[in-house]
Amino acid sequence: MGQKPRSVNELATIVAVAIIECVPNVSEGRREEVVEDIVDAVRRVPGARLLDYSSDRSHNRSVISLAGEADALKAAVVALFEAAIARIDLRTHTGEHPRLGAVDVVPFVPIEGVTMEECVALAKDTARTVAQRFNMPVYLYEEASSNPLRKNLEDIRRGEFEGLAARMATDGWTPDFGPSTPHVSAGASVIGARMPLIAYNINLNTDRLDVAKKIAASVRFSSGGFRYVKAMGVTLADRGIVQVSMNLTNYEKTPILRVFEAVKREAERHGINVLESEIVGLVPAAALINTAQAALQLADFKETQVLETRLRQAE
Amino acid sequence: MGQKPRSVNELATIVAVAIIECVPNVSEGRREEVVEDIVDAVRRVPGARLLDYSSDRSHNRSVISLAGEADALKAAVVALFEAAIARIDLRTHTGEHPRLGAVDVVPFVPIEGVTMEECVALAKDTARTVAQRFNMPVYLYEEASSNPLRKNLEDIRRGEFEGLAARMATDGWTPDFGPSTPHVSAGASVIGARMPLIAYNINLNTDRLDVAKKIAASVRFSSGGFRYVKAMGVTLADRGIVQVSMNLTNYEKTPILRVFEAVKREAERHGINVLESEIVGLVPAAALINTAQAALQLADFKETQVLETRLRQAE
Repeated sequence: MGQKPRSVNELATIVAVAIIECVPNVSEGRREEVVEDIVDAVRRVPGARLLDYSSDRSHNRSVISLAGEADALKAAVVALFEAAIARIDLRTHTGEHPRLGAVDVVPFVPIEGVTMEECVALAKDTARTVAQRFNMPVYLYEEASSNPLRKNLEDIRRGEFEGLAARMATDGWTPDFGPSTPHVSAGASVIGARMPLIAYNINLNTDRLDVAKKIAASVRFSSGGFRYVKAMGVTLADRGIVQVSMNLTNYEKTPILRVFEAVKREAERHGINVLESEIVGLVPAAALINTAQAALQLADFKETQVLETRLRQAE
Repeated sequence: MGQKPRSVNELATIVAVAIIECVPNVSEGRREEVVEDIVDAVRRVPGARLLDYSSDRSHNRSVISLAGEADALKAAVVALFEAAIARIDLRTHTGEHPRLGAVDVVPFVPIEGVTMEECVALAKDTARTVAQRFNMPVYLYEEASSNPLRKNLEDIRRGEFEGLAARMATDGWTPDFGPSTPHVSAGASVIGARMPLIAYNINLNTDRLDVAKKIAASVRFSSGGFRYVKAMGVTLADRGIVQVSMNLTNYEKTPILRVFEAVKREAERHGINVLESEIVGLVPAAALINTAQAALQLADFKETQVLETRLRQAE
């Protein structure tokens, strides 16, 4: 039934789509009118599509999701910086989440028809413009990083806004762009490129937090687990169960299904079953397609075989 | 990790699209220039988008995928008939795949913003035109069928081109449109409407055709298996292995992963392993997302969590 494709792409008339996601984190999660101001600045940029935004009061921080092509995203980030610098003053900012600046971190994420290298180039270009326009110190991070000491976001953010002036004077901590002193009210920013991050949780049919913590330790990188997994064990008090709560930072190299199966096996060692799992927020289609590929032992599957992908390309 | 979004959908107005897929199967898979001729005829029809085409030499058959709105697809199918009738002669055609005519089967498939009823109406309208224009006998099948005996494609195709004249003279086998005798060189055609079909094959690490046939029998509807599975065992001579070759006709009710797991278990009964599986041609994204959901025990997953889906909605 179904025959092997001999060939053939109808790629002639295909409009290349290059979709990048950008997820700026700004240091304001309490004053709604300020968040709306900042989001409005992004909305006004043609071609930058606002996918989602959410605020956390205890973190005093908002996460904004945009998508579009490179030029539109760069313009949107510049507009966002302008609005955030005008409304946020780190000298009076408090919150649970560590932060370095008003626009704390800006990752560019390759989604479709675009390489990581192109996202790195966009990150550097945006960082240079932001540094010049706003006289803002900017560190590059993750794939865009120029220095192994400053690849990891947590490392760059250590000491936070309050320790920034001292940090910048330290050997090796000259920013990649902009002045070597903090912006007086807006601190510094971290701009870079990374793979899509998937917030993935697995619920267990037990209330034993010690088991969830042991399983989390077994799969996370920091204690010997998978390279691209961050994990912790938490209690879901309202349901009387525990959860292995994870961030998957590279689903290509550490696939979701592999993590799921490892957690399931570890749980079985404790006589415990997986109740269910959940993806929180957005997930790239490719991550689910990879999962299906692995589950079905699919050989040679191409994303262009997905009907909707093909339709969009042929448009 | 990952906070739950407090808010917010940026759902702009969604533009209504009515997308139908059409997947003509033509009885030529060896002479490339003939296939190109036929495909070119379709390419010339404005509004009909050629998504894909592929040929199989041993089946001596090509599958062409088009998408568009009703009028454009009808025009494309008429153009395809004209080209195929001019270049294909069933009297000299050989191949492994059963066939009734030069344009063997033409299904219309609802994809987005269109009902099955509208696809049925399009199938009937196209069948009537093709029958008149080319003096071609046409049977309607699946959702467009007018007779329970002629709902299933295999039933209609039994006896193939070679037995067609005798078949047509049998009670109840008068075609739905066109003459009651075969087209001398192009036989007859089957036109209808159906759900998206997934051509799905599972390769086994053995050359034992009897095992592939037994497994096929265990999963296919006609011999006691799943409601929406058609299956046969075939040899892949060039690779020295066998394959369970399937059509999945409703992935919502008979999910891909359930079929894969059943085949895997049956193979194990014979001491045989699944080497790999393959999806031939196009597959709706929802079928892969369903697979990932099942494999990961995902609870409460919504298709709007897929980044690309969200992107399209925000357009």
